[in-house]
Amino acid sequence: MSEPVIDAPACDTAITLAFSVLGKRWNGMILGVLGNGKTSFVGLRKAVTGISDTVLSERLVELSDTGLVRREVAEGPPVTVSYELTTAGAELVPTIAELGQWAKRNLARP
Amino acid sequence: MSEPVIDAPACDTAITLAFSVLGKRWNGMILGVLGNGKTSFVGLRKAVTGISDTVLSERLVELSDTGLVRREVAEGPPVTVSYELTTAGAELVPTIAELGQWAKRNLARP
Repeated sequence: MSEPVIDAPACDTAITLAFSVLGKRWNGMILGVLGNGKTSFVGLRKAVTGISDTVLSERLVELSDTGLVRREVAEGPPVTVSYELTTAGAELVPTIAELGQWAKRNLARP
Repeated sequence: MSEPVIDAPACDTAITLAFSVLGKRWNGMILGVLGNGKTSFVGLRKAVTGISDTVLSERLVELSDTGLVRREVAEGPPVTVSYELTTAGAELVPTIAELGQWAKRNLARP
């Protein structure tokens, strides 16, 4: 008698939804950095090591559209633009911290 | 007086480490599906909607190398290959579930 294929239920829709944002390179790090507080574009670019200006811009637009990040313009001179988490984004911070704790325990450092 | 750049501390190394795995497309879904139990390659491919055979193979090799997934070969005939979470992978399941809960509360469905 042949072994049956071991089927699995389709990936949970909520998990799929979560990783439509977090499974995109840099997003977790951007949200993690903003979890420490409001930051300028340059501050973010420095804190998220390796990201380019173009990709950071794209990600910030997407994360704003998703309702996780708020862009704030302060009248100057000079005009300054800063980014911070919305309530929805801030709600993710403790779970991101948990992921970090898990990684520290379980992933070998490169 | 000009507004200073709002600097941020560099992204936490543990969070960076976590998203070196989870910030890669499909990995979160694959781990989420395996959180429901041992699954065959075909079972996984069906459960992770949209993934191709090639990418699923690559991801499974990477996730095995990272120590999160175990590949098991059962003598046949026919020989069957299945995949399951290691202890390190299984430890992530509750946090993945939390991400799903967060997504359900906070992300608009497409």
